[in-house]
Amino acid sequence: MLIQPGELLAQINSPADLKKFPKDKLVQICDELRHFIVDNVSVYGGHFGASLGVVELTVALHYVLNTPEDELVWDVGHQAYGHKILTGRRDQFHTNRIFGGISGFPKRKESEYDSFGVGHSSTSISAALGMAMASKYKGVNKQHIAVIGDGALTGGMAFEAMNHAGVSDSNILIILNDNCMAIDPNVGALKDYLTDITTSHTYNKVKDEVWKILGKLSKFGTSAQEVISKVEGAIKSAVLQQSNLFESLNLRYFGPVDGHDVNHLVEILRDLRDIPGPKILHCVTVKGKGYEPAEKGNHTTWHAPGTFDKVTGEIFKKSPATPQPPKYQDVFGHTIVELAEQDERIMGVTPAMPSGSSLNIMMKEMPDRAFDVGIAEQHAVTLSAGMATQGLKPFCNIYSTFMQRAYDQVIHDVCLQNLPVVFCLDRAGFAGADGPTHHGAYDIAYFRCIPNLVVAAPMNEEELRNMMYSSLSHEGPYSIRYPRGNGVMPDWRKPFQQIPLGQGRIVKEGDDVAILTIGHIGNYAVQASQELAEEGLNPAHYDMRFVKPLDEDLLHEIFGKFKKVVTVEDGCLMGGFGSAVVEWMIDHGYSAQVKRLGIPDEIIEHGDQLQLHRLCGFDPAGIADAVRSLAEVEKVS
Amino acid sequence: MLIQPGELLAQINSPADLKKFPKDKLVQICDELRHFIVDNVSVYGGHFGASLGVVELTVALHYVLNTPEDELVWDVGHQAYGHKILTGRRDQFHTNRIFGGISGFPKRKESEYDSFGVGHSSTSISAALGMAMASKYKGVNKQHIAVIGDGALTGGMAFEAMNHAGVSDSNILIILNDNCMAIDPNVGALKDYLTDITTSHTYNKVKDEVWKILGKLSKFGTSAQEVISKVEGAIKSAVLQQSNLFESLNLRYFGPVDGHDVNHLVEILRDLRDIPGPKILHCVTVKGKGYEPAEKGNHTTWHAPGTFDKVTGEIFKKSPATPQPPKYQDVFGHTIVELAEQDERIMGVTPAMPSGSSLNIMMKEMPDRAFDVGIAEQHAVTLSAGMATQGLKPFCNIYSTFMQRAYDQVIHDVCLQNLPVVFCLDRAGFAGADGPTHHGAYDIAYFRCIPNLVVAAPMNEEELRNMMYSSLSHEGPYSIRYPRGNGVMPDWRKPFQQIPLGQGRIVKEGDDVAILTIGHIGNYAVQASQELAEEGLNPAHYDMRFVKPLDEDLLHEIFGKFKKVVTVEDGCLMGGFGSAVVEWMIDHGYSAQVKRLGIPDEIIEHGDQLQLHRLCGFDPAGIADAVRSLAEVEKVS
Repeated sequence: MLIQPGELLAQINSPADLKKFPKDKLVQICDELRHFIVDNVSVYGGHFGASLGVVELTVALHYVLNTPEDELVWDVGHQAYGHKILTGRRDQFHTNRIFGGISGFPKRKESEYDSFGVGHSSTSISAALGMAMASKYKGVNKQHIAVIGDGALTGGMAFEAMNHAGVSDSNILIILNDNCMAIDPNVGALKDYLTDITTSHTYNKVKDEVWKILGKLSKFGTSAQEVISKVEGAIKSAVLQQSNLFESLNLRYFGPVDGHDVNHLVEILRDLRDIPGPKILHCVTVKGKGYEPAEKGNHTTWHAPGTFDKVTGEIFKKSPATPQPPKYQDVFGHTIVELAEQDERIMGVTPAMPSGSSLNIMMKEMPDRAFDVGIAEQHAVTLSAGMATQGLKPFCNIYSTFMQRAYDQVIHDVCLQNLPVVFCLDRAGFAGADGPTHHGAYDIAYFRCIPNLVVAAPMNEEELRNMMYSSLSHEGPYSIRYPRGNGVMPDWRKPFQQIPLGQGRIVKEGDDVAILTIGHIGNYAVQASQELAEEGLNPAHYDMRFVKPLDEDLLHEIFGKFKKVVTVEDGCLMGGFGSAVVEWMIDHGYSAQVKRLGIPDEIIEHGDQLQLHRLCGFDPAGIADAVRSLAEVEKVS
Repeated sequence: MLIQPGELLAQINSPADLKKFPKDKLVQICDELRHFIVDNVSVYGGHFGASLGVVELTVALHYVLNTPEDELVWDVGHQAYGHKILTGRRDQFHTNRIFGGISGFPKRKESEYDSFGVGHSSTSISAALGMAMASKYKGVNKQHIAVIGDGALTGGMAFEAMNHAGVSDSNILIILNDNCMAIDPNVGALKDYLTDITTSHTYNKVKDEVWKILGKLSKFGTSAQEVISKVEGAIKSAVLQQSNLFESLNLRYFGPVDGHDVNHLVEILRDLRDIPGPKILHCVTVKGKGYEPAEKGNHTTWHAPGTFDKVTGEIFKKSPATPQPPKYQDVFGHTIVELAEQDERIMGVTPAMPSGSSLNIMMKEMPDRAFDVGIAEQHAVTLSAGMATQGLKPFCNIYSTFMQRAYDQVIHDVCLQNLPVVFCLDRAGFAGADGPTHHGAYDIAYFRCIPNLVVAAPMNEEELRNMMYSSLSHEGPYSIRYPRGNGVMPDWRKPFQQIPLGQGRIVKEGDDVAILTIGHIGNYAVQASQELAEEGLNPAHYDMRFVKPLDEDLLHEIFGKFKKVVTVEDGCLMGGFGSAVVEWMIDHGYSAQVKRLGIPDEIIEHGDQLQLHRLCGFDPAGIADAVRSLAEVEKVS
């Protein structure tokens, strides 16, 4: 079902088309754009609230700017659906986030209007500043705009960029899209400060104080009013401009303005176009604006609601006939509470992913022991290290892809000091529809080279629980990676059992070929083995559980017995689990044919997880093929 | 030669001893401590200016605090010499930074007074906040103090931590040690802002304005003076407190205060001890304070001057009889200028390491094309990515160890988009005296798993130049790693030659055993080969030059000919260069004995580079041993 756009939107295939309309049509265009997004996302799913919140800003920007010559960088990119629709991708929009379709994020390969690929937070100011500095150097006169949310602004690199922008003398405009939200509600002092500005508390407080002082001097009569008014002006200028946080960083501050008044936005953007130097426009918006269930409802739910009935606002839930296995994130979320009830050392830390990691369960039940620290992965890790020095056992839950942001802190602040922080890496392996910016492809490789760090991955819910439990008695850093999505055990709340450090297990005895797997992907090997059994092939299967330390006893057993080995991982082949097995084999003088399955050394695009696994040849059929091809060699030789 | 402390300092073996002195002795103690640092560093070398700048602060902190129960975190740690001397390490201080001696940085293993290990910048607020939150949770009443420089404050994670601290309701005191310096002069808008506060420009500006307004109303007579004074108070409170950048983040701001008035500092710290919640004390200090050549001279030179004549301030330079090979960093520094003169696309970017990277050469000669962006590795990388989108060729120079800070940006902003940024990783391999926080041990492993990224390492100056030159014609990201210290070619300014992507070279033909090296460490293999030749052993030697892409033709040749291979790298063995070779060998069905030499999977402490190479078994003797042991097997079998 192709969604039909409204009559004006149907005529807009590029920003040039948009510019043909008189300004008095912009409200209608915004209305149609908003409807088009609602119509599409309700049927096809995707990110929702963020794009609705910037409909007016998007229309105003493309109405005023000369894109793609002018550079427009959307931070994170959840909010860029309107931008995509206005820049020639309206008719492909129904393929959004689908394998082979358009990306859910701005992407340079996809469109010349996507000036910078995004996905992770807080990059836009740096990128736009780089562009602006390049233009200055080349003598090119154009606009460079970063649109960044108040959530993304808490990420440290945004601050690094503002610190530089303020002295750069470059033509950059930062548009602060202030909606008080990350995916979950935004947190931190900056958020309070922005609220303070937008509600003018600081200004009012100072103004009141001055009125009080001057008010006493009633004998001045009318001329005193004049004094008061002028003093007020001076103070307003001091408080709201010169001493504003952004002005402190030498960014000219404009705002706050209503981000839903498209005509006013057009005027302001036109004015700002002619003001040189680094500047910031503070727009106040509402996530989900214009679609009542989203605007008035839970903004986190409506961040990416899945499909829904656009009339009633009812979000469709699959209700399977039989009990389904839980999501790994929920196993984490419930298990940490269960463990924390028994062990008072346990704390929970998440950088802005309470609902995505399910740490919100602990935050609700134990609010003094579980914390959302904002979009601040670096801080999350070192904060956890600080807690660990005090005898606590912090569980720091960060998506695999976002852990890249805290790599130095893991090495420098946790592992060099051998501090007992437990890292839980959610969304390890392919993220699915979010695509390459979010794939958790590299963590095995980038973690296993760090001394002192345990690298573990559970094959199922029970192993995840037991690894979390076992990490408590380990005296150093311990990482546990698990994928997005569901496990395999509907009945998963088993009693805790200690898994000795570095101990793998045999899943299935066999002969000729051994399959060594790490993590959830081992379940594919189970399926492959079943398929192969029908052909009379009987590979052994080992769930290694630890990339580091490797189970050396088990490896001696395996390489003593097998001359053909398949390794399987949902991580990069370069330096990953298979690489570790091969290193060990060579170091110990074994010689075997080893076929390593995993993510090849290239960028894998978005799609269903299974589609991507198939693409990379490590779905059940791919594993079976690998076993067959090794077994085949035997027959031939 | 053991340096003798002054008479009071000689009695101080712990903060408890310090506390026995009456307050009026503190100035003398500071004086003696300063002399002791000058006496030691002038003879033994080490970091200098930073510790002199915080002598008074250090004495005041240990006089007031109840360390080690109270937690004192020094950011970076260059400034912690006084802290070490006062906390029981006076008599070991001459072993500072020497193999087997004390560390140049605070280190948990070394002393209970070192509450958090440091080395990299901007971690202290996160760590201290983690401690403070733990204390709050456990109901422990103590102090948690982060001492952070204005340079370190520009690192994004410091901002992330302040954003959290401001809403944490935890007992944390941030002491801003404001000396306008990183290693090089601090840069950025924040620095200007701090200067503005300390010189009261903002305050004075607003005050003047109000005076002007009120001055007109002379008819008020004396009572107007009263008004003025009160209005002034209101504005001062507004400008300097409520609207201060730090107050914007809900940190109670105190200061600025003179960081060299030890008695005043003692009073202030006593007062602050009793004020709960997150707060910041702004201390103004001078790097090198109290030693005139350092205080008045070039602060960058005196950051770590090496040994010097303490009387004259003359820094000792080794003046060798014959021309020496240049430092790799200088080859980079001169070569980028040479290339930039021919290629207008080239830009230079460094995060706060202009002198350490020698990019200062380009900054001086081409100030519009080379930039110090502050301690902001994340921003440096994404800024470079932004420049690359505009057709430029940024060279982003970051020490290997600090590149860990920008790992996500390399993946997400550069390599996913295949943007042509050239990364130059200085100080790859062992950093030497700086120790484990600064060793560039992991970059080969953490870079080679990233798609699109070229991973190259030159064996000498000429190769570094040619790799920089060759990177210009490569359409994607290109990394070049090289070590701290000198190369091997006194006559190094050779004409540029293209090195085809992924092409290794044979250094020496041979038989029986092949040595495969990557980077400068290949020169050790040359020495080893010479040593082995005397014993009649004749290993072949290949300088692979690229970890990625590997030279597959050359590898086919090598594994076709040799059954015994030694790989050598000054990087971690887990997932490194040798691992790449072994992966390739297994993937291509070769079978050979491979002995991988490199950094083992453990924390290697500080020491001379050669000492550390020997420790890890890849100095020339270690390489020779590896060849011998493989050759030996032959003879035995």
